[in-house]
Amino acid sequence: MCGLDAAVDMIGGKWKVLLLWAMHDQPRRFGELRRLLPGISEKVLTQHLREMAADQIVRREAFDETVPRVEYSLSEFGLSLHEALRPLGAWGTQHMDRIAEVRA
Amino acid sequence: MCGLDAAVDMIGGKWKVLLLWAMHDQPRRFGELRRLLPGISEKVLTQHLREMAADQIVRREAFDETVPRVEYSLSEFGLSLHEALRPLGAWGTQHMDRIAEVRA
Repeated sequence: MCGLDAAVDMIGGKWKVLLLWAMHDQPRRFGELRRLLPGISEKVLTQHLREMAADQIVRREAFDETVPRVEYSLSEFGLSLHEALRPLGAWGTQHMDRIAEVRA
Repeated sequence: MCGLDAAVDMIGGKWKVLLLWAMHDQPRRFGELRRLLPGISEKVLTQHLREMAADQIVRREAFDETVPRVEYSLSEFGLSLHEALRPLGAWGTQHMDRIAEVRA
């Protein structure tokens, strides 16, 4: 049980799962992440990215260019968590109609 | 993305994941569930069980005996969700030390 307990602690809630998904195939900038997750506030996104970086799930890279640029991407650790969530995503897709029905 | 979104909606948070675990191998009574999830209040447990039953994840059976008895167990649908969470549990167990370290 404590494995599941620790894992659920790491993913926290809905937004972090969706952030894992948003970054799983390429680095993203802050603005992109906000567009990919409609409804997330700037404050919540900032806080979640900070927590995920502290948890070593997300890497934050600042590029010192004429226009400073910051990118967020998944670390190896973050990618392994995303992989562990794939079956849950597949379950959701497979039962999408039933979930919509019970939640209607 | 929406599969994962829908699935995360169904598991809601930490308690429901632990309730899935607690009922995955045998029916449980209310009191047993409270003992297995130290820290959950009677009110939250009642509400979660009601939601999980409405979501068709949990079956509630009342036995009309001299002393009325109520048991909660996972439906087939609930068991399939528990199975989909196994890899996440394995990930948590595998990375237990690192999770404890980053969260210390």
